Amino acid sequence: MRRAVIFTAKSTETPAVENIETLMGKYGEEGNQLIFKILKRGVHESTGEADLALRYDLTVPLARVVAEYRDKLPKVFKRYQIQPVWRADRPARGRFREFYQCDVDVLGSRSMVVEAEICAAVSDVLTKLGFEDFTILLNHREVLEKIMTVQGVDPSQLGDAFTVWDKLDKIGVAGARREWEDREIYLGAYDDLIELLYHDLGELRTEFRNGDNENWNEDMLERFPMAMGDSEEAHANQGLDELSRILEYAGRTSARGKIRLAPNLARGLSYYTGTIMEIKVEGMPSLGGGGRYDNLVGMFLGKDVPACGFSLGLERIIVVMTERGMFPADLVSSPADVMVTIWNEDSMNESIALAHELRATGLRVDLYPDADKMGKQFKYASSRGIQFVAVLGDDERARGEVAIKNMRSGEQRSVNRAEVAEELRKEKHS
Amino acid sequence: MRRAVIFTAKSTETPAVENIETLMGKYGEEGNQLIFKILKRGVHESTGEADLALRYDLTVPLARVVAEYRDKLPKVFKRYQIQPVWRADRPARGRFREFYQCDVDVLGSRSMVVEAEICAAVSDVLTKLGFEDFTILLNHREVLEKIMTVQGVDPSQLGDAFTVWDKLDKIGVAGARREWEDREIYLGAYDDLIELLYHDLGELRTEFRNGDNENWNEDMLERFPMAMGDSEEAHANQGLDELSRILEYAGRTSARGKIRLAPNLARGLSYYTGTIMEIKVEGMPSLGGGGRYDNLVGMFLGKDVPACGFSLGLERIIVVMTERGMFPADLVSSPADVMVTIWNEDSMNESIALAHELRATGLRVDLYPDADKMGKQFKYASSRGIQFVAVLGDDERARGEVAIKNMRSGEQRSVNRAEVAEELRKEKHS
Repeated sequence: MRRAVIFTAKSTETPAVENIETLMGKYGEEGNQLIFKILKRGVHESTGEADLALRYDLTVPLARVVAEYRDKLPKVFKRYQIQPVWRADRPARGRFREFYQCDVDVLGSRSMVVEAEICAAVSDVLTKLGFEDFTILLNHREVLEKIMTVQGVDPSQLGDAFTVWDKLDKIGVAGARREWEDREIYLGAYDDLIELLYHDLGELRTEFRNGDNENWNEDMLERFPMAMGDSEEAHANQGLDELSRILEYAGRTSARGKIRLAPNLARGLSYYTGTIMEIKVEGMPSLGGGGRYDNLVGMFLGKDVPACGFSLGLERIIVVMTERGMFPADLVSSPADVMVTIWNEDSMNESIALAHELRATGLRVDLYPDADKMGKQFKYASSRGIQFVAVLGDDERARGEVAIKNMRSGEQRSVNRAEVAEELRKEKHS
Repeated sequence: MRRAVIFTAKSTETPAVENIETLMGKYGEEGNQLIFKILKRGVHESTGEADLALRYDLTVPLARVVAEYRDKLPKVFKRYQIQPVWRADRPARGRFREFYQCDVDVLGSRSMVVEAEICAAVSDVLTKLGFEDFTILLNHREVLEKIMTVQGVDPSQLGDAFTVWDKLDKIGVAGARREWEDREIYLGAYDDLIELLYHDLGELRTEFRNGDNENWNEDMLERFPMAMGDSEEAHANQGLDELSRILEYAGRTSARGKIRLAPNLARGLSYYTGTIMEIKVEGMPSLGGGGRYDNLVGMFLGKDVPACGFSLGLERIIVVMTERGMFPADLVSSPADVMVTIWNEDSMNESIALAHELRATGLRVDLYPDADKMGKQFKYASSRGIQFVAVLGDDERARGEVAIKNMRSGEQRSVNRAEVAEELRKEKHS
């Protein structure tokens, strides 16, 4: 009863606050430290203990909720969810401590149709927003694990190896090699990985040229089994099969040509079990990511439920769209179609009544609250970008009229009181 | 940079998390205890100290933001805001620890036009939602203060007296009298208040009969000055003048006849300075409330900015609307217009392509992710309330057709592959 979980036909909302145990240990070491923890209330407050925490992402709370409501949910449960999350991160460009995530998830199926549909949904959203140059990076945790262990990384060091490997993009081959060495991971494996996965590609950084993803992916689907030791077993690897299926299925959707196999994509969150995905737009940190987390619901339910999802970061998308001027100019509208002024104390009732009548016709009406000087009231309307101002002066009222001033053209004329709404409507559309 | 404050033409969004000092001391003693406090991060975590807190309402953060952005905001700043707030309250029917408030506020004017407009906005919203029997209770902190001190309540005990007086509705005249006595407030004042404000009314509990508010208010506007000592000064009291103005102005709006002077309304929050309001619907705790808080911005800015606002509680409104069956039956829609099935592993690509094509025409499409038995797929569509199911069987594919089954009528027929979208569109609207 902290807050009701809200299910609609297509969306879910969960409370912002979760029990602290629900969140701890699900996001890796760094994640644990970035969770906002809430003090116990009442007499326990002085103990300094925390029992609750602010949601760090939408995925773990979803898994908790699915475990709790399993019997009431359909076998294949699809939902979207748009809610804020909190991370005690250092703020930076496009990185806030409170930000909205926009998630889609499908629970209940191991089919790669799910991954393909999720990639299509992400493509649809970004295309609708006006993005053309995005790429969905795709990799597979099991494939990465297999490749690394075959190349001699000690299984106990896989987590460390993933962390370094994931930074290849940012810190380059030499930088990642140094960090690999610092963490005392077998260096021969690193050199072999670079050789097998990237040799002859001439580029390590993910600089995308439109249309080259299909060739790149074909090439990668040959390099992956090589990096696994090029045996029959390597070629039949289930993770590899899943990656090719996704590419095949997604080719029938709007994600066609948008997906690129990214051998160095590892992602930080510890709950991923299979496919991992990330959105790349030139010059920006990731706009979002996702993947398969077949064991997460099981941590709450005691029985695994296959699951896969994707999360877009709303603020980052807004930052990029703002910087690129992608928002339509008329999106920031004026707060009202017309402002009704107040001529003097005696005419207040009439101004209020006019505002009320105009509103009832569906016009958006601002009512200036004080009998200030007209110039001041006009200035206010102007500063707020309100195009029309209605004045109920003594003369107008005596004649049963209202003066309408167009703040853009400066034109002013008197209109019969009963026809104000209609006149404004005409003007507005002229 | 914790999170950007977002201003649109008419709305504002603020971060969920505020500095703890911003919230403490603004809501009264009880409020302080109900604030969720967030532990300092990093090395400070072990100290058990809290530096941040979850927003308790939308008003105090608004005042903080207005103080911070004063120079950039219009002289009269109007905004709506719909966001969650958190209170460590004991959960009950319609009372959650996380809930949405829907606020309107006007800052920058002392005019009672503001109060009248806010009452009109609240009336419009509730009427649009289908409420007919709501009443806006109205009172005034200064009037109440004046009446109580004139009747002999010690000024140092006004807070206590307000608390007891506000419960008159719930605990009755005798119960409130006992509590008044327990708190050692001058009992003669209590008896006089009851006599002067309620004598002969024959009802203390606010049982409303439609249409009786105007007579009631006229009567109260005579009783208030009597309770103040019936002097010339009492009749000219500014708070009284404000109450009559609101009733007069609101009479020109949709709030006409909806407002009722409620002498026992005091409201708990400590930041109110003048008018106070509360929504009453029979048989429910308050659906929302508000009032004037002319000093709150000043606590952050060092200079007062007049302000008045109202807050509706979303969850409580939903509880009442659900209990009364006020939601239209077709509001809970099915998640999709059509579900595309998967015949077998070989036909997956074709099902994906069909789903993609249908979606591109604007239909809402669910794609079943696995090649399960048809019966199972049909059952799923049925359980989700999806009316149409598309089947790409071997025969249909050979003929370039798709079988469409209407799950409600049971009817099934084959349609040319290229005409599926059009057929579904026709069926949907037939």
